[in-house]
Parts: sequence; C-alpha cells; structure tokens
Amino acid sequence: MSAHPLYTADRLDRAAKAAAAAGLDALLVGPGADLRFLTGYDALPLERLTCLVLPASRDAFLVVPALERPAALASPAGDLGIEIVGWGESEDPYALIAARLPHTVAAVAVDNHMWAEKAAAFREALPEARQELAGQVLGALRTRKVPAEVEALRRAGAAIDRVHSRMGEWLRAGRSEREVGRDIAAAILDEGHVRTDFVIVGSGPNSASPHHELSDRVVEHGDPVVVDIGGTTADGYCSDSTRTYVVGEPSPEFLRLYEVLLAAQCAQTDAVRPGLTSGELDAVGRDPITAAGFGAHFIHRTGHGIGLDTHEEPYIVSGSPVVLEPGMAFSVEPGIYLEGKYGARIEDIVVCGEHGGERLNLTSRELRVLP
Amino acid sequence: MSAHPLYTADRLDRAAKAAAAAGLDALLVGPGADLRFLTGYDALPLERLTCLVLPASRDAFLVVPALERPAALASPAGDLGIEIVGWGESEDPYALIAARLPHTVAAVAVDNHMWAEKAAAFREALPEARQELAGQVLGALRTRKVPAEVEALRRAGAAIDRVHSRMGEWLRAGRSEREVGRDIAAAILDEGHVRTDFVIVGSGPNSASPHHELSDRVVEHGDPVVVDIGGTTADGYCSDSTRTYVVGEPSPEFLRLYEVLLAAQCAQTDAVRPGLTSGELDAVGRDPITAAGFGAHFIHRTGHGIGLDTHEEPYIVSGSPVVLEPGMAFSVEPGIYLEGKYGARIEDIVVCGEHGGERLNLTSRELRVLP
Repeated sequence: MSAHPLYTADRLDRAAKAAAAAGLDALLVGPGADLRFLTGYDALPLERLTCLVLPASRDAFLVVPALERPAALASPAGDLGIEIVGWGESEDPYALIAARLPHTVAAVAVDNHMWAEKAAAFREALPEARQELAGQVLGALRTRKVPAEVEALRRAGAAIDRVHSRMGEWLRAGRSEREVGRDIAAAILDEGHVRTDFVIVGSGPNSASPHHELSDRVVEHGDPVVVDIGGTTADGYCSDSTRTYVVGEPSPEFLRLYEVLLAAQCAQTDAVRPGLTSGELDAVGRDPITAAGFGAHFIHRTGHGIGLDTHEEPYIVSGSPVVLEPGMAFSVEPGIYLEGKYGARIEDIVVCGEHGGERLNLTSRELRVLP
Repeated sequence: MSAHPLYTADRLDRAAKAAAAAGLDALLVGPGADLRFLTGYDALPLERLTCLVLPASRDAFLVVPALERPAALASPAGDLGIEIVGWGESEDPYALIAARLPHTVAAVAVDNHMWAEKAAAFREALPEARQELAGQVLGALRTRKVPAEVEALRRAGAAIDRVHSRMGEWLRAGRSEREVGRDIAAAILDEGHVRTDFVIVGSGPNSASPHHELSDRVVEHGDPVVVDIGGTTADGYCSDSTRTYVVGEPSPEFLRLYEVLLAAQCAQTDAVRPGLTSGELDAVGRDPITAAGFGAHFIHRTGHGIGLDTHEEPYIVSGSPVVLEPGMAFSVEPGIYLEGKYGARIEDIVVCGEHGGERLNLTSRELRVLP
C-alpha cells in the first residue's frame, strides 16, 4: 500500500529525535490528536489501552486491543512499517509495554490528554521511570504546520464556509435553535466533513453566552444570532468559523456594537505576522473594543490554535509571550457580550505565513441580515 | 428553581462521605461523566479548567472559565446551592483552587478521565498532597444505579429500540455503509436522544471487525450487517444495542453461526443475578460458543457497564472477580467474527435486580432478514 500524503513516517522520526533531545527515553501516546498526528490512526478513546510507544532510539510500535487491530491496520498507521501489537481481553497491556521497553528507561512522557487512570497505570508498570508530558516534544511539531497541513486546513476552511454561505436556508424566525442546529449539523457533513464537532446557535439573549448549548428557544424577528460551527475532515483537520446574523431588522445599538467588533476583527487578522507575540496580537483586537467602552464585555481570549484538535497551541491570550511563527494556524475571534441582552462574535482561522497572515475563512464578515 | 429529579445534592453528600472514609481531603472532578453524575453539568472537555472541588468536610464549589459560567448556572448544577466560581482568561485556576483548600490537604483524588496535563498542574499547585484517583470513591456510587437512574436507562433503551425497529427504512442492498449510517444517526436524534454517540454499520466482511468504522462499502445481497448504535438522552444516560441483519438470503453457514450466538446471548441474559461474578457471567456466554468451535473467533469480553458513560464499570470479562449487585447495568454482547468473511453480534443492556436481570432492549433477537 502507498503511504498517506499527510501521515508519513518522517513524523515518527522527528518526534523520536525531539524526544531524545529532551532527555526522554520514550513517548507513550494514546488516542487523540497526538496519535493521529504521529500515525494517522484516529483511535477510539476507550477504557481499553491503545498506545503508540515511541522509544527515542528503537523502533516504534503500536499496542491496541485485539478487536481494534483491523481498524488500526486499515488506518494510515498500517502503512508506516511499524509493528501493531494486539492484546487480548485478559492481558495487561501496561505490563506488556513495560516488558518491551529497555530496563534502563529513566524518563517517559505521556500525551497531554491521556486519562489520569492510564497515566497512573504506566507509573505503576514503570515505577523507576520519571513521567513527564509529551507536549514538550510534540507541541512544537504540531504547532508549526507543514504546507500539506496548511492545505488540509484550507480545505476545512472552505468546507465550513460553504455551510455559512447556506445559512439562509435554515435560520429563520419561528424555528428553534435546536431545529436550526440539526440542519447545520447535517450540512457540515454534506459540505466536506466526516464529523460535526460543535454547533452553537445562540439567538437573542442566548447570543450573549459564548458557548451556549442548542436550546428550544424559538428565533424571533430582530434577534442577533451567533453561529459558531466546526467539523473534522477526512484528513483529521478541523474547521471553526463564527458569523453573526440578524433575523429581520437589527437595532441601531446592535449595529454600533457590531461595527466596533468588525473593525477590531479586521485589524487583528490584518496584523498577523511572524515575530509578533500572541499577547500583542490579542491586544490588537482587544484595544479598540476597550476604547469603545465594551472592554468588560469581551470576556475571552481572542483565539486558539487549530489543526488536528479544534483547540490546541498557540492560544492567543492577553500577556502571552508566545511568538508567532510561520505555519502556526489559529482562530481570530473577538466577541462582545451584553449579558441578558445579546452578543456578537466574528471568527476566522488565520495561518501565519512568512510575511503576514492568510485567512482561511472567506465568507463576508459584514453583518448578515436574513429575512 | 426546582431541583432536577436525577441530579440532587445528595449525590454530593454521599461522595463527600465516601471521600472522607477513603482518607481523601478532596475530590477534583473535571468534565465528563463523574462531573455530570455529581452535579448534572455536562461541561465541554476543553483545555481551560472546569473542576468541581469536593472537600470531604467543607462546602463543594465549581470552578469554571468565566465564559462557561452562564452554561454552568443554567445546568442542574445551578440548582444545587453550591458556589460557581468563574476564572478570567489571565488567571491561574489551579492556584485559585489551591488557595481555597486548607493548607493541611494531604491527599486529593482526580477523576479517572482527567487529562494528564491537568493532573500534572494539580500536582504542581498542591505539591504537598498525594494524588490518587477518584474512581475508588465514585466508582461504587456510579455502578449501583438508584431506581431513577434505572428508569433513565429504560428510556434510553426504548429509544434505541425504536431506531432498530426502523432499520428496514435505511438498510438495503445498493446503499453504502456511510449512507445507511447517516440515516441511523439522524434517527437516533429523532427517537429520543440528544447526541449520537456511535454508529457501527459493518457489512459483509466488515461485519467481522467489531469496531468497524463507517466506510463507503456498498451493501450487497446476502450480506450480514452488524449494526451497533447508541446515543445519549437529555438526562445524560446512554443507550447501546446491537442487532445483526442480513440483506437478502443468508447462507446456511451463517445461519449456523447465528444460532450458536443467539443461544449463547439468551443464556447469558437469563443468567444475570446478584452474587454471580462478572467472570462467571462471561463464561455463560463464552462456553457454548467455544463448545461450538467458535471460541477463537469471540475476541472480546462479553460486556461493559453503562450509565452516564457508554463504557464504565463493571466490565464483564473472563476471570473478573467483580460480584454482580442489584442496580448494576451492563451490556451482554457476545460476538463471533470470521476474519475476512463475516461476523455477528447481539447486544442488550441488562440491569441486575434483586432476583435476576431485566433486559432494557426488547427488539427481537432473531436474525432480521431484510429484503
């Protein structure tokens, strides 16, 4: 079989070298974005242990429950030339891994999202080894996207843009957030994703809660509606874009708020360039909102990295010293929320290039007034 | 506001008492089933810390990102009379929690699914405290369902049964697994769930992979098709049921395999009673399959507990000494898989009562032959 264009064995090599440089004898990577990054295997996050063992100076191997072995082999991991070891229901996979590692192992790192109970089981199985977090090694590899990853994020961005461009089909007065949300969820699949990750439809006063859950509230004429949606493509890369709509006639007060927000978001996406710190980029969006008197109503950071996880490094947060580098991809999503009244948010994914940023979401950022 | 019928404050009291009895000064519980069990709050599993702090002998409090506070207040957690503390984007929530705990804290326990990076941050913020796993305390509380929880599982079982009973609407020769799967996913929502958790449609040779992912394979005449589906109801409780279908005429060899499986599954659901060990129950299903010569093709345990998680304690696995008790709810799902050829599985959720088991899935277990 031929290798997957994204998931090639050089990721394993780079990670092993970085682990050695960090003084780690092995990385232990369970289901999630780290595992997918390293092998292309999108494993189920189950209580049974699935774990890539990546020694710094030996061959990697993937330990999976016996019943998951066909799925692991069918994934890009099956083409990497690494051994895929199945364990039976009555075996102890932690002991199996410990027995395959050299007795001299002094330091291992578990992936940052590994469940506490699994990390604890590894501490017990490897009592002599110091346990650290693999993020110190994998973070840098995952944060700086290579061109094929940027292209995958472009495809994801275009896919979610197609959903936003169809919003008028579903978002109307008289329909509940839940009804609208279900149509959007189906469209996310129709338009080039294999998984719907989240659908926020915050209408009227609910638009003031940034992470509002879909409710049975019925959209009314004049409601601002914040629609924040995202999914995962077949490649594993994620989309995430927010637009704010108004159903019917917006109030002058809301228009003023939106104008402030739009100017801030445009200034912030324009400001992206290598060398700027994450904190400085946050300020570019935050300062004009504060100057307009809405500072206390902008209650979250302005962005998060995105890739194989919807939220990952780098976080664009006030005071952060993280320096933007070419290949970093993150959201730019200022918002203004007047509790009990309404709110608005505009979100694009931006990739930092050599000289400036590239927006991956290209639907209009003007206020979308729906009939 | 009135308290939610399932999520009442006595769960917090019971957990605090159990923590004290286990010598723990506090439980630290992040997003997931443990948090939902204790508070009713279905929090997003984000990088930002959300954490219920449940001291053994003080008032509990819930720490959430400021932007999640409206959602937390709107959840049943808002009616429990506990303080809900929001933290701002530039604050350190681990330090905030450490400062609110007594200086004498000697032992804390984190929930079993807490991300390794969060558990590590708590170790750093509470360097003097031993860190254990909260499962030792919460496991027993969650495993033995109270009558209101059993009723919630009954509703979930009836909901997924309605989906299986409609399978003929979607499962036909000429349609791909993915197309069939999408229709099933929509029906899971239509029939009383708020979330589709998984949809396995394994057709033809894919039916031999127990956790097959939906593929573009087109269902052919004569295919056995394993359909294993589940969702989460508004209450948070989960459904999970498997039926095996044949599209068109089944082969005599497949019929023989299915007969063995059906007899084994019926014997096993009939055998459920308090006092039996999990390992003994596993054997009731496994032994007849082994006797019929299919033992090597039954590659997984026969069941898993179910409640607010689809997979939780108790696991019904060969050799397990766990003793069944009234209120335990778990799947009974033997399967036979002939790699490269076909497979079959039958799965019901069963609740252990005072004298025997109650099946919560009641669609026919006979082989369903679809036109």
